[in-house]
Amino acid sequence: MLGRVLVYGGKGALGAACVSHFKSNNYWVGSIDLSTNEEADASIVLSRDLGWEEQEAEVLKKVSEALSGEKLDAVICVAGGWAGGNATKDLAKNADLMWRQSVWTSAISASVASKYLKEGGLLTLTGAQPALEGTPGMIGYGMAKAAVHQLTRSLAGKNSGLPANSIVVTILPVTLDTSMNRKWMPKADFSTWTPLTEVAGLFYKWTKGQERPNSGALLQLITKEGVTQLVEAN
Amino acid sequence: MLGRVLVYGGKGALGAACVSHFKSNNYWVGSIDLSTNEEADASIVLSRDLGWEEQEAEVLKKVSEALSGEKLDAVICVAGGWAGGNATKDLAKNADLMWRQSVWTSAISASVASKYLKEGGLLTLTGAQPALEGTPGMIGYGMAKAAVHQLTRSLAGKNSGLPANSIVVTILPVTLDTSMNRKWMPKADFSTWTPLTEVAGLFYKWTKGQERPNSGALLQLITKEGVTQLVEAN
Repeated sequence: MLGRVLVYGGKGALGAACVSHFKSNNYWVGSIDLSTNEEADASIVLSRDLGWEEQEAEVLKKVSEALSGEKLDAVICVAGGWAGGNATKDLAKNADLMWRQSVWTSAISASVASKYLKEGGLLTLTGAQPALEGTPGMIGYGMAKAAVHQLTRSLAGKNSGLPANSIVVTILPVTLDTSMNRKWMPKADFSTWTPLTEVAGLFYKWTKGQERPNSGALLQLITKEGVTQLVEAN
Repeated sequence: MLGRVLVYGGKGALGAACVSHFKSNNYWVGSIDLSTNEEADASIVLSRDLGWEEQEAEVLKKVSEALSGEKLDAVICVAGGWAGGNATKDLAKNADLMWRQSVWTSAISASVASKYLKEGGLLTLTGAQPALEGTPGMIGYGMAKAAVHQLTRSLAGKNSGLPANSIVVTILPVTLDTSMNRKWMPKADFSTWTPLTEVAGLFYKWTKGQERPNSGALLQLITKEGVTQLVEAN
C-alpha cells in the first residue's frame, strides 16, 4: 500500500472516480457519503438528520476508528450539489441546502485534516468558477462556494491548524463531464467539460507531491477541445 | 413621515444607533432582533429556535403585517457577531453560529427586499474588511462574511429579484466604536474605530438618494484620526 486518502463525497460521480483512481494505484481509500462505496476500504455512511456539529463529531470519530492510529496522505473533499434561484423564492431553502452540501463538508474536511492529515499532506476542496463573481440566478450556490474559496485562503494562512508543510488547494470546475450533466444538458459541447479522470489524476499527482500548486490556490479547471488547463484565480 | 426603513439587528449597538438616527429624522422604523427595540415603530422579535426557512417565513409574514400594504425605502441589515477559532477546535460550532448571525440575516434581508422594498430602494448588508483575505484565526467568521460579500455581487446582478433601480451596498467595517469593543480592547486606538453615528448617517444619506455608491459595492470603512473614508474593494 502506497498511502492513505479519504474522499468526502466518495459516492458522487467525481468522488467515485477518485476512489477508483486511488484504489487502482494501490492506496487505502476511505469514503464518506450518504451511502456506501463498496470499492472503498472503509465507507463512512452519514445520516441526513445530523446537524453540523453532530456531523463533525461523527466523522471525526469514524475516521479515527478507520485509521487505527495511522494518518492520511490526503483529504479530498468533492462533496457538493447545485441549486438555482434568485432572491424572490425559496432563498433560505436553497441556500441552506447548498451550505450543507458544500460548506459543512468542506469545513469538516478541514477539521479532519487538522487531526488526521500527515505533515506535508494534501487537503483539496471544491469551489466553483462562477462564484468568483456574482451569481444572481443561483444565489445560495454562489454564497456557499464563495465561503469555500475564502476557507481555502484561511487554511493556507499561518496557524490555521493544518499540519506543518501541508497544503490546501481548491478546484474551481466550470462543468464536470458526468452522466447527470450529459442527461440534463444533452446538447452542450462536451469537449469543454472536464473529465472526472482528469481531476482524479490531478489529486493523485498532488498527493504524491508532484506538481503541487501553491497552498491556498483557487484553480479554475478550463477545458477546451478536451484539454484541461489549470488557471489560478486571484 | 418621510419614509419607512427596516433595521435587521435593530437591538444591537449599530442597529440601535440606526433606529435612533432614522427616528430622529422622522422615518417610520421597523426593528427585527431577538429582543424588542422600544424606540422602533414596529419591533419584530424572533425566537432563537427557528431554522433558516422558518425564520425567513416568520420575518416575511411579520414585515407584511407591520407594513399593511406600504413599501420600504430601505432594508438595513446590521445583524452579526464574532467568533474566533482555527481548524483544530469547534470549527463547526463557530462556523454555524457565524452563519446564523451573518448569512441567515443577510439572505432574509434580501428576501424581504425582493418583496417589500420600493423601486429605487436601498438594501445594505454588513461584511467585514478582514474577510477580503484569509482569516486563519477566525475561520467561521471569515467564511460567513465572504458569503455576504458574494451575495452582494449576486444581488447587484441582472434578475437577482431586487426591485427595479434599487441598489445593494455592503459595508466592510474594520472595528466599530461600540461600548463592547471598548470594554474588550480598552488599550486600542479609538481614533481608528468607526463611530456608529457615522455609519447611521451614511445609511440615511443613501436612503434619501444622496451620494449613493454603485450597486454591488463592498465599501471598506477606513477610519483614521476620527475621519472615516469609504474605500471600495475590488
